[in-house]
Amino acid sequence: MQRRILRVNMTNRTATFEEVPSDYRTLGGRGLTSTIVADEVPPDCHPLGPNNKLVFAPGIVTGTSAPSSGRLSVGGKSPLTGGIKESNVGSRFAQTLARLGIQAMIVEGQAKDGYQLLKIGTEGVEFVDGRRWSGKGLYQAYEDLRSEFGEDADICGVGVVSERSATNSGLVFNDPEGRSSRYAGRGGLGAVAASRGLKFIVLDRSELPHVDYEDKETFDRGRQKLVNGLRQHDVTKPDGALASYGTNVLINILNEAGGLPHRNFSTGREELAELVSGERKAELIKQRGGTRPHACHPGCIIRCSEIWTKENGKDPVGVLEYESVWALGPNCGIYDLDLIGELNRACNDLGLDTIEMGNTIAVAMEGGLLEFGDGEGALQLMEEIRNGTPQGLMLMHGAKFAGTALGVTRVPVVKGQAMPAYDPRAVKGMGVTYATTPMGADHTAGYTVAPEIMGVGGKADPLAADKGALSQSLQRATAVIDSAGYCLFTAFAVLDIPEALEGMVETVNGVLGTSLTVDDIDGLGKKILDVERQFNKKAGFTDVDDRLPEFMRLEKLPPHDQVFDVADRQLDQVFEENH
Amino acid sequence: MQRRILRVNMTNRTATFEEVPSDYRTLGGRGLTSTIVADEVPPDCHPLGPNNKLVFAPGIVTGTSAPSSGRLSVGGKSPLTGGIKESNVGSRFAQTLARLGIQAMIVEGQAKDGYQLLKIGTEGVEFVDGRRWSGKGLYQAYEDLRSEFGEDADICGVGVVSERSATNSGLVFNDPEGRSSRYAGRGGLGAVAASRGLKFIVLDRSELPHVDYEDKETFDRGRQKLVNGLRQHDVTKPDGALASYGTNVLINILNEAGGLPHRNFSTGREELAELVSGERKAELIKQRGGTRPHACHPGCIIRCSEIWTKENGKDPVGVLEYESVWALGPNCGIYDLDLIGELNRACNDLGLDTIEMGNTIAVAMEGGLLEFGDGEGALQLMEEIRNGTPQGLMLMHGAKFAGTALGVTRVPVVKGQAMPAYDPRAVKGMGVTYATTPMGADHTAGYTVAPEIMGVGGKADPLAADKGALSQSLQRATAVIDSAGYCLFTAFAVLDIPEALEGMVETVNGVLGTSLTVDDIDGLGKKILDVERQFNKKAGFTDVDDRLPEFMRLEKLPPHDQVFDVADRQLDQVFEENH
Repeated sequence: MQRRILRVNMTNRTATFEEVPSDYRTLGGRGLTSTIVADEVPPDCHPLGPNNKLVFAPGIVTGTSAPSSGRLSVGGKSPLTGGIKESNVGSRFAQTLARLGIQAMIVEGQAKDGYQLLKIGTEGVEFVDGRRWSGKGLYQAYEDLRSEFGEDADICGVGVVSERSATNSGLVFNDPEGRSSRYAGRGGLGAVAASRGLKFIVLDRSELPHVDYEDKETFDRGRQKLVNGLRQHDVTKPDGALASYGTNVLINILNEAGGLPHRNFSTGREELAELVSGERKAELIKQRGGTRPHACHPGCIIRCSEIWTKENGKDPVGVLEYESVWALGPNCGIYDLDLIGELNRACNDLGLDTIEMGNTIAVAMEGGLLEFGDGEGALQLMEEIRNGTPQGLMLMHGAKFAGTALGVTRVPVVKGQAMPAYDPRAVKGMGVTYATTPMGADHTAGYTVAPEIMGVGGKADPLAADKGALSQSLQRATAVIDSAGYCLFTAFAVLDIPEALEGMVETVNGVLGTSLTVDDIDGLGKKILDVERQFNKKAGFTDVDDRLPEFMRLEKLPPHDQVFDVADRQLDQVFEENH
Repeated sequence: MQRRILRVNMTNRTATFEEVPSDYRTLGGRGLTSTIVADEVPPDCHPLGPNNKLVFAPGIVTGTSAPSSGRLSVGGKSPLTGGIKESNVGSRFAQTLARLGIQAMIVEGQAKDGYQLLKIGTEGVEFVDGRRWSGKGLYQAYEDLRSEFGEDADICGVGVVSERSATNSGLVFNDPEGRSSRYAGRGGLGAVAASRGLKFIVLDRSELPHVDYEDKETFDRGRQKLVNGLRQHDVTKPDGALASYGTNVLINILNEAGGLPHRNFSTGREELAELVSGERKAELIKQRGGTRPHACHPGCIIRCSEIWTKENGKDPVGVLEYESVWALGPNCGIYDLDLIGELNRACNDLGLDTIEMGNTIAVAMEGGLLEFGDGEGALQLMEEIRNGTPQGLMLMHGAKFAGTALGVTRVPVVKGQAMPAYDPRAVKGMGVTYATTPMGADHTAGYTVAPEIMGVGGKADPLAADKGALSQSLQRATAVIDSAGYCLFTAFAVLDIPEALEGMVETVNGVLGTSLTVDDIDGLGKKILDVERQFNKKAGFTDVDDRLPEFMRLEKLPPHDQVFDVADRQLDQVFEENH
């Protein structure tokens, strides 16, 4: 099916299919959302004002049979960071959008009379009054929507916190069973959607076309190489680390490495971590009759997902990812998977990013609002958010905001976005990535943990401070993977297995009819990062925004007793030519 | 008495007198605080972390018999704007500090065991445990302090909101009767003091020395010329506008000009404004037996101050300034001077800046927290702040913070600091000053209202957009006046009367032994602004921070139906060479 751009104007309630400009023809995913945002959104606009836009783009190979490629990029100006944002999610929604021939969807303007639901199918686009779902919890809303629009519909939506303009509010997507548990969570794009008047998008999957290939033979050849690589690598193979324990396998690994932040980044190791490890979780899921491994979208062969339930097997949450378990767990001094599951369920129901929310609770604990380890108190805070109390308003805008509210100076954010589950004082490459990615503190932007901790893609000493080049190269490669539409976890295989990487490039060539080689990746990635960084520069960012918070240069992290000592010069080099 | 620098280290509880470095010898007030902050404070530090400092400096002629010169500059990195801050106050405290020979006081470090009171006199500096005044309202605390340290003591302190790290928290100084009603209010320096562990400074005035003059004859000659000018100019003379009606005389003038912002900058004119005018207030003060005119410090011959009381003549607030009346009044749709007086009294008692607080309430009203005009509701919000409830925490960090909390996009701030009482769409030179001063939206930084509205210092059409040069020249002159130690209101006379300006320069020469001329003012001012702007640049500011909020370029302001249409180019020219 011919790919087109779908432009939705919420002010006039119009939906127009546009031809893809030739400049955009070979772009997809993050490369496309960032380019469109840079081309169409004034960098100095208010993120929740009339001039921001929300851009959705499936990856280049998304919707094909390429393995683990059901990824969607969502872009806009972030109300959390004030800069450009690409937030990435794995969901069948991405594949369906691609199969509907939508290379990108641009949502602009602001609805005048309340929330709208967009129904999109082969027949076109329909605007449905969305006000009746306003204020509802998302688990229930997704059930209701599936009853109304078909059990097979793919759904994207925003929760009650987005309606209240929370700068910590994500875009929520369905998992394969239809639950609201897949997230383009980071950077507050949920509030950007809500401020356009967009509450839900429902994709009708009846009579769904297939995507076109320019060169099916090359695609198939590449696909096979990549599948072979993924099936062979220790991390991604069918009985590998991710399939066996999910992303949460990292709890024990990072804790052992002294880089798992506990109690608002106060120490990097605690024996209690074992209680919330991937190994422990897999055991409990088995006992309870939950599902593991599980794919977040059809065609994923890594299958790191799962379905976590209560002890009695009820109230399935969806997946409990490593980042979520850490943020809502050890970082808050909470070492109880059931409590963490309930906190995660609350985030999914309200439309909150778990990483930002966990950091927010931890900062609130540091500020004396409750004790570290008080899981019941944390659950109560989630109810404050649900009810929109002043306490709730204080906590729904992320860690930086809560830190200001409570006068806390130990706030682990970069560009206003809270850090994920790797203390940069113990895994210094991650500090470089957090500091320099245009996205704000984001582990997925250049995952140096692979060589620093896991020995994947080479080996690097996590405590060594010379990580500029490593982060640069991984940030560029990641920008390409996020554009191709592959799950970041495919990187484990392609970093170690040259044929798999070659195969990945061939699948892209097969879809686009291009003749890219592995050597082009670095330059393509650099180009995307340059577009993003230029946007941020015009939005008012400088080198000063590419730094970690002061306390991480002053306070030593046990057990390694290291500060973040990467030179500013190393950080700035990330943006220079190859080095 | 020989001038020295007093360095107070709160961590070690040491106070050291240092010789004045030769570079600092001819500096005072803002020129000195900004230079010391630029020299000693890392621009990228956390404003409430260990590396920020708080610097106090009386003006060059402060403490002498120069008229209307009891001014103090306080500097540091602002927790509200994230940039350099000079906040300026008129109080005898400034004169006493100067007479104690303290050219500047630098407070650094962070106390380890609770709040301290610094007692400073000719005998030296004493640290007194300050914890027993913690949490108290400031009116009562100042009474208690005078009982304990002498009725004649001068006092600087911070209120309960500073103890809670409020980014809207000022430094409070005594008025001549000892009340906590004089403010270095803007930019959150109260929280910087509290985060050092500094709660109060008490100046012992017994056996107070006099300041030295390098050339008393030149000083006396200059002083007389300036006094003559101030006594002669319509705005500053003994029966002039300021002495007759106080600063609040501007309510009717700005409302008439269509530039008095009502209901969160929604319109520039409302008939109701008359109810809170300077004329009306002067009448009520007379009826109630309050005091008017009144000097904020000994030796002021302009006397724009007053003592506002309740209807029964009780509970004196101190002065109700134009900016405060506007912020807590018309900008909130409140047109009742008694209500405004109570709101102002609450600000003084808690340690809040009135401009920021009024804007915060207005933004909260826009966000639906209460109705415009609901004065009793606004008073209730002040109690929430007093009690430190979550609602209170949400409202004590200024308008931008409250706007984020409540999802309001119409937030009138620059660099995070809320705008004073002149809508930049109707008084466009003020828009240039708000946008470009290193201080955040600040009317005192370059008061183009003088020529645009009052016909002082020339005449300029307030709606004309070519105001770069005007703002530049006034910003430079203001930086010099703020360094000399003169009240900004002396500018009305010196702008129109060349001999008065000459006299002002001569008083400075008389104190310092310099031979400055009127022609040096522009260059001296530029130098100060350059120091401040360099600090901000290193703190991460760019041209994008020198812009007004987006809504003022999109929304027309009645009655002139104008947007802010000053070209970015005009704004950037403020920092270039003379033009």
